This record gives sequence, structure tokens and C-alpha cells, in this order.
Amino acid sequence: MSSRALVENLLATADIHINGERPWDIQLHRDDVLDRALAYGNLGLGEAYMQGHWDCESLDQMFARLLRAKVSEQVNPRKLAFYALKNRFINFQSKSRAWEVGQKHYDIGNDLYQAMLDKRMVYTCGFWTQASDLKTAQEHKLELTCRKLKLKPGMRILDIGCGWGSFMQYAAEHYGVECTGVTISKEQVALGEERCKDLPVEFILKDYRDLPALFADKPFDAIVSLGMFEHVGPKNHKQYMQIANQLLQQDGLFLLHTIGRNRANTAPDPWINKYIFPNGELPAIRHVGEAAEGLFVVEDLHNFGASYDKTLMAWHDNFAQAWPELRKNPKYTEEFNRMWRYYLLSCAGAFRARDIQLWQWVLSKQGVEGHYERPALN
Amino acid sequence: MSSRALVENLLATADIHINGERPWDIQLHRDDVLDRALAYGNLGLGEAYMQGHWDCESLDQMFARLLRAKVSEQVNPRKLAFYALKNRFINFQSKSRAWEVGQKHYDIGNDLYQAMLDKRMVYTCGFWTQASDLKTAQEHKLELTCRKLKLKPGMRILDIGCGWGSFMQYAAEHYGVECTGVTISKEQVALGEERCKDLPVEFILKDYRDLPALFADKPFDAIVSLGMFEHVGPKNHKQYMQIANQLLQQDGLFLLHTIGRNRANTAPDPWINKYIFPNGELPAIRHVGEAAEGLFVVEDLHNFGASYDKTLMAWHDNFAQAWPELRKNPKYTEEFNRMWRYYLLSCAGAFRARDIQLWQWVLSKQGVEGHYERPALN
Repeated sequence: MSSRALVENLLATADIHINGERPWDIQLHRDDVLDRALAYGNLGLGEAYMQGHWDCESLDQMFARLLRAKVSEQVNPRKLAFYALKNRFINFQSKSRAWEVGQKHYDIGNDLYQAMLDKRMVYTCGFWTQASDLKTAQEHKLELTCRKLKLKPGMRILDIGCGWGSFMQYAAEHYGVECTGVTISKEQVALGEERCKDLPVEFILKDYRDLPALFADKPFDAIVSLGMFEHVGPKNHKQYMQIANQLLQQDGLFLLHTIGRNRANTAPDPWINKYIFPNGELPAIRHVGEAAEGLFVVEDLHNFGASYDKTLMAWHDNFAQAWPELRKNPKYTEEFNRMWRYYLLSCAGAFRARDIQLWQWVLSKQGVEGHYERPALN
Repeated sequence: MSSRALVENLLATADIHINGERPWDIQLHRDDVLDRALAYGNLGLGEAYMQGHWDCESLDQMFARLLRAKVSEQVNPRKLAFYALKNRFINFQSKSRAWEVGQKHYDIGNDLYQAMLDKRMVYTCGFWTQASDLKTAQEHKLELTCRKLKLKPGMRILDIGCGWGSFMQYAAEHYGVECTGVTISKEQVALGEERCKDLPVEFILKDYRDLPALFADKPFDAIVSLGMFEHVGPKNHKQYMQIANQLLQQDGLFLLHTIGRNRANTAPDPWINKYIFPNGELPAIRHVGEAAEGLFVVEDLHNFGASYDKTLMAWHDNFAQAWPELRKNPKYTEEFNRMWRYYLLSCAGAFRARDIQLWQWVLSKQGVEGHYERPALN
């Protein structure tokens, strides 16, 4: 069977046509796109997209269909097996590699993130069940997170992977708490300090593994980690939990907010790994469960992955709107434009297909006495 | 160090005194109780209690203290290691062994359960956050379970491990659904059929592994399993999930209600195994996560273990009140009385200490489109 016929058959299972007329159909500008997709999966497909060799009016719809139909599982399992194998022997999230994502992704430029995100600069999933715009969805997520942690005035909070400080700012303003945040992005510290300058909020430019040396004798009343665990990697999950346990008061709560995957033994997406989040690896339920054993009681698990679809689509809208302005900066090339759109829309499609999840885990060190019940938003 | 001095030191970490005067102190009637506890852990302690060799005014408080202080982890790890090892090689929950718990525990006598449980005969954890008596707590649990499953009139529901049919009865009465329940207890089927005789509720006396032969071509709209997974055993978790997946419509929900433990690599309690639930084994988070992989998306995890403390204390109160009547039947000996109280109160203490958990997992086959949000009780 020719590559074209093979791919057409695969795509047909997801009702996607090559050069069809619906928004989720693929417009081919070069024939070798199909060979690259067959050989390299999403790495080949994504690179060909960046180079303008194919188009799709609605990438998010295309990906949602591909993933719902589980087409990717049929494409070149041997190549995927190689990625899976490699991950078993290399610790991708060693300390020296951990800084790579800080420089490559989070330091791209604050102007990009300011244009794409809400005004608070929350670069994690919003909570959309009672919101119809990004600003509200992010405020609902921050509020819900504070309530889940049972914040009270005067508490000291640690934020592992604090970004530009959006959670710390909200918590300090609304709950009167003191916050310490750690990040490995210089750009985030610089802008974050400016944004939080009148609040009891402190930024630390360090790897989370350096925290015990600073705070082992001053454990926090609560810990939050929003969208950082994805960068930790299975080989370091246990150590991460040990550090969180060590830095938390006996009766404190730890809220772990992370993207998750449905199966443990699948390879990280090679395109995302190369262009967007170097060395990231999504946890499965069993990873979190195993890492928490003997350290934390799981009080609650809330899955709101469908909200990430809406968050990413809102970020994409903002990005598309800002593009005419952003492109004036020579570092934002047309290839960057296509890369960034591919990132946002392919991830939106993956959440819509429920291929990946968004979890908030609430963990306690020894089990809350009486009962822990997830608070309502209102 | 003598046994007595060793045990006194261990108990001191939990603030328990031998022959002390507080409700949680231990009254020793024979000295060899301590040797038996050291040699056999809870098996020795429990048997000595059944034989009347020691007493405690408030066993639940004593166990809550022992488990909070993690005293059991210090007692005879070699003996526990033997149990752990044995479990790795024997499939305790093979089909032939599965019937043992039906005969030994659930067939003890309906009179016992009618006296101990609420009028609906719900033999699983109630939901106490908005209840102050057993009847209300069980109705709240049943109502919450129905809401989590999004039941609608006319739906066909499968109940794996249906007991005397309390869930099926409630769901049929309040939500207009048709129910099929499976149990391995003859006594449950006999009384359950009588209790549900005017409802569209069917009882099947079979092992759950026989269900696909009956229903593979007639999958259900929703599946519920309340307090049965504890008997399945890690070696059969995957098969259990495969069967649930096979018996569920593509867009159906599966609610798995089970006791859970905080760590996977711990031995089942040998006393509970010998006297109460032969061949049971509590799952850890990672067991459920791994078993569900590739079959279900985890939509929600609700931990209300603290409610089991209250449920067990209420069952104990009912049992104690009914005892003068029950004891007239010669099968309910004084040893049975002590065994049953030890079971109810030691488990209540374990839940109070948060040493074990009660989970409701909501699972979907392919991820709910849009969003799944845990419903509120009111």
C-alpha cells in the first residue's frame, strides 16, 4: 500500500479527508508530509506544519478527532517504542536538564505571555464550569485552589513552580497569606517581583530540590504546585513528594495541580518534547499514587481536563489577535507563529478528546481529622 | 528487654497504658497476651481478645491511637513480611476461594445484619457530612451515588456485589431504573428478592466473572460496585476492570466504591483475614490507577473515609443493643460477640486514624464529553 493510501485509511477512521472541505480536513501542500508522519508520528507532522507543508483550518478539531479515534496508536509503534525505551534509561529531569525548559520555554519573552494570557498571567488551566471568559475562569481556579487549601490570614504558603506569581498575588490579596515561590525562569522572577512588589510575596530562582536547604527547619502551612509536576518526571516523583512532605507542617495541605495521562506506558509526545516542553513527562494516576505512598493521604482528586480545552482556545485567540504586533519583533518568525499555534491547538484537541487530563490532587500528611470535603465555588 | 517492657515502650508512643484507667487503656487478664501480640501482631491480639484475655473500654479509641502513632509498623516486621511474601504467590481471590467470603461472612445470618444495619440494610459506608444518624447517612450515600451516576428513568443498571439490594431498591424507587445485581451470598439473594419483589430488580447468584457470558451483548447504561472491590484482590483488578468495561455502554459511567489503603506494599491484616473477610485485600491508589489504564478515564475520586468511622460506631451501637436478643441463638456465642465488637471497633479506629480510606471513583470509558463534575448532595 502507498503511504497516501495507508494514511487515507487511517484518517478515514477519524473522518478526516486529505484536501477535503471541512474545517478539520487536511490541506496538503507537499506529498512527503505523509511519509514524515508515518515515520515520525507527531514529530514529523508538527515539523512539516511549522514549515508550511500542510494546513488545517481547525487544528484543534482535527486533533480531537484523531485522538478520539486513537489513530496515533496505529502509527509506527516501533518508533514510539524507541522513545519509550530511551526514557527508561535517561533521567531527563536531572538538575542540569531541568533548567533547559526554563530557558527554552518560559524565558521566550514576557511580551508573548502578556499578550496570550489573562491580566493575572496565569499560565495553567482555568476552571470554566461557571465562567464564560478567560479572566473569570482563571479567577475561579485561583479562588477554588485557595478554598481547597483552607487558607487563613497569616499562613505561610510555598508555591513550587510559581510562574509570574499569579497564585501568590491572588492568595496574598484575598486571603492575607505570606507566600514564597520558586521558579527556574529568570524572566518570571524579574516580572513577578515587579507585579507583586507591595505584597508579602517572595520569589526564589532555584531548583525545587534546593528548597530543603533553605526551609527544612521552617515548614510551611500549605503548599501549592500548579502546572509544574509535568516537568518533574517519573524518576523524580518520589523525591518531589519527599521534599513537599518535608517542607509542610504536620496538619498542612498540599495541592498538586498537574496535567495527567490515561496510561503510564506511553511515550511523551516527541514534537512537544522537542519544541515546547523539553524533558517534560506527564504522570499517570499510578505515578502520583505510588509517589505519595507513605508520605501523603490522598484526600481528593478533581479532574477538570475539559476546562483546558477552553483555556487553550482562549490563549490561541489572544495569540492570534496579538500576532500582527508580536511579529514586528524579529524573534517571532512565521515558523514560530505556526509552531505556537500547533502547540496550543493540538493540546486543545487532546483535552477535548479526553486523551489527557487536568488533575487537582489534595494531599495531607497524616489524613485530615474528621473529614476533608472539596469546597464548592459558590 | 522483657516482652512487657518492650510492649509498654511501644504503647507509650501512643499514650496507651497497660492496666491504666482511661477508656483507651488496656486491661490485661493474662500476661501471655503481650507475647502473642509481639509474635503475631493483630492476629495474636485479636484472638486473645476473643478469648477474653484482655479488655479495653473503648477499643476504637485504642486502635485510633495505635494507628496514628504507627505502632504496628514497629511490631515484628519479619512476621508481617511472611504474610506479604505469601500473598505474592497465591491468588487468594481465585474463583474457588471467592465463595469462601460469601459463606463465612455474608451468610452468617440475616438476623445479625438486620439488627446491626439501617432498615435499608446498606452494608457499606454512609455519607455523614450532612447527617447525624445512620438512616440519613445511608440515604445520603445512596442519593449521592445515584447523582454521581446521572441516573435517568429507564436506564439499565448493573450492581456488582449487590448485597441485599439496598442500592438497587433505592435507585429503582427514586430514579425509575431497572437493576441487575450479582452476589455470591445465597442469604443475600433470598432476602434481597423478598425485599425488592415489586420492583424491576433482579438478583443473580454468581461470581462477577460469569457476567460477560450473560450480558456481553447487552451492556448496561451504568455500573455500580459498592464495597465489593476489597474482595477482588490485586491479581484480579485488571480482569475486574475489563469485565466492567465490557459490560458498560460507550457513554456509561462506572462508580467504584471501595475501602483503600495508603500503601500498596503492606500485608492484609491477618486477624481480619482469618475471622472477618477471608481472602480480602484492600487496593492502593496505584492499583486502581493501573487496573483502569486503557479501559477507563478517572473522572473523579472522592475520599470520605472519616464517614466510615461513624458508620461502624453506629453499627456497633445497634449490635450491642441487639446482643441480648441475638445471644439467645446458640450460634452467637460470647466469643462471637467479642469477635464482632473487635471487628467493628478496630476498623472504626483505623478509619479515624486515617490509616485506611473510603473511596468513590467515577470512571468513564472514553472521557465524558464536555466535563464531569461531582454533584453536590443538595
